[in-house]
Amino acid sequence: MAKDFSTREENYAQWYNDLVIKADLAENSSVRGCMVIKPYGFAIWEKMQAVLDKMFKDTGHSNAYFPLFIPKSFFSREASHVEGFAKEVAIVTHYRLKNDPNGSGVIVDEDAKLEEELIVRPTSETIIWDTYKNWIQSYRDLPVLINQWANVVRWEMRTRLFLRTTEFLWQEGHTAHSTRDEAFAETKTILDLYADFAENWMAMPVVKGIKTASERFAGALDTYAIEALMQDGKALQSGTSHFLGQNFAKAFDVKFLNKENQLEYVWATSWGVSTRLMGALIMAHSDDQGLVLPPKLAPIEVIIVPVFKSDEQLSAITEKVLPVKKELEEKGISVKFDNRETHKPGWKFAEYEFKGVPLRLTIGPRDLENGTVEIARRDTLEKKVIDISSIVTEIPFLLEEIQCSLFEKSLAFRKKHTYNVDTWEEFLDVIENKGGFAYAHWDGTSDTEEKIKEKTKATVRIIPFNNPKEEGRCILSGKPSSERVLFARAY
Amino acid sequence: MAKDFSTREENYAQWYNDLVIKADLAENSSVRGCMVIKPYGFAIWEKMQAVLDKMFKDTGHSNAYFPLFIPKSFFSREASHVEGFAKEVAIVTHYRLKNDPNGSGVIVDEDAKLEEELIVRPTSETIIWDTYKNWIQSYRDLPVLINQWANVVRWEMRTRLFLRTTEFLWQEGHTAHSTRDEAFAETKTILDLYADFAENWMAMPVVKGIKTASERFAGALDTYAIEALMQDGKALQSGTSHFLGQNFAKAFDVKFLNKENQLEYVWATSWGVSTRLMGALIMAHSDDQGLVLPPKLAPIEVIIVPVFKSDEQLSAITEKVLPVKKELEEKGISVKFDNRETHKPGWKFAEYEFKGVPLRLTIGPRDLENGTVEIARRDTLEKKVIDISSIVTEIPFLLEEIQCSLFEKSLAFRKKHTYNVDTWEEFLDVIENKGGFAYAHWDGTSDTEEKIKEKTKATVRIIPFNNPKEEGRCILSGKPSSERVLFARAY
Repeated sequence: MAKDFSTREENYAQWYNDLVIKADLAENSSVRGCMVIKPYGFAIWEKMQAVLDKMFKDTGHSNAYFPLFIPKSFFSREASHVEGFAKEVAIVTHYRLKNDPNGSGVIVDEDAKLEEELIVRPTSETIIWDTYKNWIQSYRDLPVLINQWANVVRWEMRTRLFLRTTEFLWQEGHTAHSTRDEAFAETKTILDLYADFAENWMAMPVVKGIKTASERFAGALDTYAIEALMQDGKALQSGTSHFLGQNFAKAFDVKFLNKENQLEYVWATSWGVSTRLMGALIMAHSDDQGLVLPPKLAPIEVIIVPVFKSDEQLSAITEKVLPVKKELEEKGISVKFDNRETHKPGWKFAEYEFKGVPLRLTIGPRDLENGTVEIARRDTLEKKVIDISSIVTEIPFLLEEIQCSLFEKSLAFRKKHTYNVDTWEEFLDVIENKGGFAYAHWDGTSDTEEKIKEKTKATVRIIPFNNPKEEGRCILSGKPSSERVLFARAY
Repeated sequence: MAKDFSTREENYAQWYNDLVIKADLAENSSVRGCMVIKPYGFAIWEKMQAVLDKMFKDTGHSNAYFPLFIPKSFFSREASHVEGFAKEVAIVTHYRLKNDPNGSGVIVDEDAKLEEELIVRPTSETIIWDTYKNWIQSYRDLPVLINQWANVVRWEMRTRLFLRTTEFLWQEGHTAHSTRDEAFAETKTILDLYADFAENWMAMPVVKGIKTASERFAGALDTYAIEALMQDGKALQSGTSHFLGQNFAKAFDVKFLNKENQLEYVWATSWGVSTRLMGALIMAHSDDQGLVLPPKLAPIEVIIVPVFKSDEQLSAITEKVLPVKKELEEKGISVKFDNRETHKPGWKFAEYEFKGVPLRLTIGPRDLENGTVEIARRDTLEKKVIDISSIVTEIPFLLEEIQCSLFEKSLAFRKKHTYNVDTWEEFLDVIENKGGFAYAHWDGTSDTEEKIKEKTKATVRIIPFNNPKEEGRCILSGKPSSERVLFARAY
């Protein structure tokens, strides 16, 4: 299984790609930049979706579905949206094929040309606000709290499985409010929700904060984000929540009668996480032995591998195992008993270790005699022998311990790779040699931000919330600054 | 609410469209032929998805995700597939917009033309079999049992909300097998699953059977389908399961080494249901008062409406209602307590009646004194007063009764509108005057089928399974026939 598998140190990018392919998570398709998400990878995404979907509903949101296509002219309506966004997109120009008169294939029927081209949605603000115009007349129609699970397309020149693909899956929330404060509060509620998900489900610590103007979503007044640190010292933006002000309401003329019977533009937010989170999850915990998954998002939490030489032995093991499996499942734990005779135990050990199953139980004839079972943790690779009778109490406890331990380990890694830097030399050392998060003073101008990016490929990832005020001097320009911001190279 | 709402008799098509719009299920978007599925409509679809998804998983299938785009040349690979299918599609030809040098908008960047056009998937057999080629080498890799929940696009000239839209949502199963028998069994398993879902969840009786050659899926050897009868006497195909033989394996060169170490082509099935089922569900049970939903698929099964004139009364009612609501929810019943003060009880009654909520509880000050509550059934519009203390036992029973009763009512309707016809005149009378299912003899030729369609717009919907053998003469050609087939006009 782990043959031809690069280590992180040898080649981190190759390690990641090998991991995604060999753990059966995803692969490239015949369509440039578009991936196939394989069943095992998709099962993880489904777990993430289920948790997030419940979180959205628990905070009052409903799902809906808006068209895949957006008329080209819609993108010009919101000036900064079109500037910052809508260029690299898939464009539908025709709606019919016909048989090639010169051959056996099919060709585009030039008679079936669209009057106005349609854009495959790269994000749905425009088509959704065009729809909201008809839904919102009065303050009684507000708030509108809607989420959509959808595929989107952004034409990418350089793609990496999950991290950057031409088509990806995501959820996009689009809410409409009667006041600025309410929209603002929604933006924050969602950012907190994303951080909660990242930390308590993905076991991945994140920094919450606000983006600088140059990293803001095209059309937003403010973009909030969570940033996580990957094992190669690069940051990964893991979720964004945008305060859109009245920009899209103005662009699509969405007004409402307030309680004082006056017409006002509606206030808006949008927010999203995508299959990119799969990339974050994979990189956050995995090691040179393969994938490591937090139990809460693992499609299989416990794998049971029988070791047997005869049918009688397998029957005896099965008889012991099935009631335990059932008891664990009744506790909501997903358990697989791999009793296939086509594969040897050693192959199975390697397979499930590589695929990041948090716990493995092994049971053979000697265990049957002794009433024991071997239990192996994927995260630490530790093994111990326990009584069969204690499995049902032990396993939930161990899964919880693994979940916490992964978070603590990631947090410790981040602490170790987080630096306060005060000089350009220190900054360079972190960005180019050590890798990690550099908290540094910055003069607040896009100009300096751009220069730093040109010189080092590092960007301001975030201005953290509740950032302590501290007098200092910009690491590049030397101009005064009142707080440190978080710099890193990023995915 | 029900103002400006056509009755079924006045104008069935208008009634349907009004119902979809006014019950907040869906609406047309600014993109021709594409709909917006609104939160209430989407909540029903999510319930359907959840049930079907569990059924697929319980029968061994996993979900995965394949690209939205398919290279144009893929469609030419399977000859009958391209003939029967791939013409009316959305075609992506370019991948970049640029600012219009003459104005403020954006235009297609002609420099960003794709070498090969991409088709927005109308169905995914081709891209999936192109992928399976790399997944399948040996009999050990089989079966592959995969389902995908996705959006697909078929360029439609005349669209109707849910029933026929350019973009729609669906699931498509694509399975690969080592033997013909196994693929054949899969095709039937899925058809049974669809019928089970239609009858036991949607409360909609269906006829199972096999399609004639002219109604077969392009590329299939056989297409099985379930057909339901709508209230206007037309049939609605509600799910199809295709036995694809080795056609796609041959087109995409997917071979496997069998146990005898010989190379063979893989056997295939594909199957799907779509948001069209929403149209079926809406039409199956609804009436001139609005939507009627089977409890098992209703987003809200029980609505509780308080009648009050003062805050004290509302508090007293709330105090009584909340524990009951909680107890019902613990039984897995979805309950909404609409305590809004912005809307009057009469408005709420009309609203939830129109939206098809199966049960309504009304509780006012007099009920509080008497310890009673009024309970109203949406399907029969019957009301009765019961003791508050018996709600928790009564409601599950009533919901089950409504579910059964809707099925029985639909079944009785279908029986009443199903005819054995032996002459052309009888046939015409059913198709053109009475409406419904006509079981008639047919000579088995596509030629006759086509003539009947031209004359009457009726088609062979299905050759039913377990069809009794019976000697007769074709209603049109008079040639001998050994069984009756099911004719109807169809959506």
